[in-house]
Amino acid sequence: MSASIAATGRAVFSPLGGAAAPDGAAVAARSGESAVPDGAAVALNVGDTWLRPFEAGRMEALRCAEVPGLHRYCDTQGIAALLEAVVQKLRAQGARGAARETVLACAGATSGLACAVSALADPGESVLLLAPFWPLIRGVVRSQRATPVELPFFDRIATPGEATAALEAACPPGCVALYFSNPSNPTGRVLAPEMVEALADFARRRDLWILCDEVYEDYAFQGECVSAARFAPERTISAFSFSKAYGMAGNRCGYLLTPNASVCDGIHRASVHSAYHAPTAAQWAGLRALQSGADWLARARSFYRQAGEAAAAALKLPAPEGGCFLFFDVAARLDERGMTGFLEDCWQRGVLLAPGASSGQGYESWVRLCYTAVPPQEAEQAARRVAELL
Amino acid sequence: MSASIAATGRAVFSPLGGAAAPDGAAVAARSGESAVPDGAAVALNVGDTWLRPFEAGRMEALRCAEVPGLHRYCDTQGIAALLEAVVQKLRAQGARGAARETVLACAGATSGLACAVSALADPGESVLLLAPFWPLIRGVVRSQRATPVELPFFDRIATPGEATAALEAACPPGCVALYFSNPSNPTGRVLAPEMVEALADFARRRDLWILCDEVYEDYAFQGECVSAARFAPERTISAFSFSKAYGMAGNRCGYLLTPNASVCDGIHRASVHSAYHAPTAAQWAGLRALQSGADWLARARSFYRQAGEAAAAALKLPAPEGGCFLFFDVAARLDERGMTGFLEDCWQRGVLLAPGASSGQGYESWVRLCYTAVPPQEAEQAARRVAELL
Repeated sequence: MSASIAATGRAVFSPLGGAAAPDGAAVAARSGESAVPDGAAVALNVGDTWLRPFEAGRMEALRCAEVPGLHRYCDTQGIAALLEAVVQKLRAQGARGAARETVLACAGATSGLACAVSALADPGESVLLLAPFWPLIRGVVRSQRATPVELPFFDRIATPGEATAALEAACPPGCVALYFSNPSNPTGRVLAPEMVEALADFARRRDLWILCDEVYEDYAFQGECVSAARFAPERTISAFSFSKAYGMAGNRCGYLLTPNASVCDGIHRASVHSAYHAPTAAQWAGLRALQSGADWLARARSFYRQAGEAAAAALKLPAPEGGCFLFFDVAARLDERGMTGFLEDCWQRGVLLAPGASSGQGYESWVRLCYTAVPPQEAEQAARRVAELL
Repeated sequence: MSASIAATGRAVFSPLGGAAAPDGAAVAARSGESAVPDGAAVALNVGDTWLRPFEAGRMEALRCAEVPGLHRYCDTQGIAALLEAVVQKLRAQGARGAARETVLACAGATSGLACAVSALADPGESVLLLAPFWPLIRGVVRSQRATPVELPFFDRIATPGEATAALEAACPPGCVALYFSNPSNPTGRVLAPEMVEALADFARRRDLWILCDEVYEDYAFQGECVSAARFAPERTISAFSFSKAYGMAGNRCGYLLTPNASVCDGIHRASVHSAYHAPTAAQWAGLRALQSGADWLARARSFYRQAGEAAAAALKLPAPEGGCFLFFDVAARLDERGMTGFLEDCWQRGVLLAPGASSGQGYESWVRLCYTAVPPQEAEQAARRVAELL
């Protein structure tokens, strides 16, 4: 772009829906585990957790004297100990293709997925997104000059047969990849194994990569949550994150499982030229999470499940099957002010929600509520305040 | 890319030249400040520092109880306190355009520059690189689907008149930006203010953005180091980093100064869709560096200057004017094994160097030596061992 043609107007950056993520500097710490401020609106628009990381996984537990090279560059693929722990974790889950040369530490799952799109999709090629989707993915695809194609799915496709028919109808020529999150952000749905198998079969038939967003894998409350890699390991790039699972969203660290070393290399190259490498300290924190975070995780899962069930009950919705969100249609409540007015009404009642439009076309009258951003009781109270508006 | 066409062969990722950056897990900590291992080869191929960050800027000094939202998402532009401190720092340096809406915290200068290229260059447009250059920039430009055009400069252009003539001859149609680092990585040259002004004038005449890599601004030992923003603030994107200045390379945090809010917004959008935001803890560490890192910086500058002078003397080179590197031609010493053989000979004498080819075409017989990666005496000894080979 010529320097004389500056971008016009302020863009809306927040994938979180209108309001930006809360600024750390503006969030007063509360005693105990919660970092939620007193007195402010309850920010359920952000996909975050109210829990602090377990003690050994906090920055203050990473000591120069104990952690070599803590503030220095590291291997751009990831520190060896983390890669090894990731391989062990994935193999224990049944991922036989997990090996030192097929996993990549990335600067958050966002960076990992952006690098995967960069490596696997040429400009103008399409990526099929199962909607409603994680609000960032559409921009991630566009930012890599590829074309997002949206397929409404999670709220309406019930059977593998319906899935295959819908995919056949929606998948354009020049499509190179299929993206979906499971458990689903924002719907909270956990896809049944036979559904994931149908997606994998379709991808194989059409020779698509599968970008399988598994950042909520640890928060499946109902049903069996399986990876597409179980059915199509030769074409699945799985994205994982320490952000959601261990309360380390600010750390910006996740990892990818790729089908083979050459795909991993291609994504690694994109990572080197955009992030250089995942933050070193965050990788050590992630390693500690894999080594000793199990108890914290079990406790968090219990909190989150309780919060999800209570918030859903308050809103007369089915309990979420997984993830951190409720996603529901408020069309009947919208007046001439549209979604903006509804979000303002929620805000006046002290609750921030995210608009559904960022999760796909056709979801303009839906909203997303993150029930893990505050302690369960606060989430339930906030859900009640929203319910009163409906 | 179709899933059936996997990338072929293992790519060479390391912009550091052949050998990867040292893996934190494999580096034994030594007592005191140095994190350099005993007994291993001296890794002068990597642009890193042997010094640990000052105490208040270490991860272990960032405590949950004191730093709100330390492990959580933050404002994707950067935490407010850091942005404010950056604005104050830049204004104190004379950057009148520095304001809350024109600065962006980024996940390292690498990410910031990648996002700037993404926002400002369309696929197929060119970016003119003054060579020899920072080894990553060529791949950064290519990764964004733009075309790098190389202009040998730092080792041969002495006057503003020569610079203008060389730029006129090299700048292709469809060029949208000019990139250079000052102090220069890898040459150690500090461009005179009138040279920077000539570059800025040329950019204005050709309506180019200027990507001004200032990550070594704190390590200018001779002459006055000025930013292109002094002469062409309306088109200069300056990249800064805490990595080099404060020994925080692993943290992955830097910042950009942009010409105006709309350019900043465009780069911010690319950042959200690739990095989401700079790591939260790293931003707090960076804030502390700006608040209380001055003494550490002065001491580091003294160490680095001493190391650079001693290493240069050992190699019979002029003392570096700034930065962290020596860059010199070893053509007379190359045998039929070429650069690989020379690097192997260095390695056998316990010194790792980076090959010049990664800094530009025409520098295949040059090598880069980072004299700040180990304590000054070790750097000098390593330089002597290299000198014995010449």
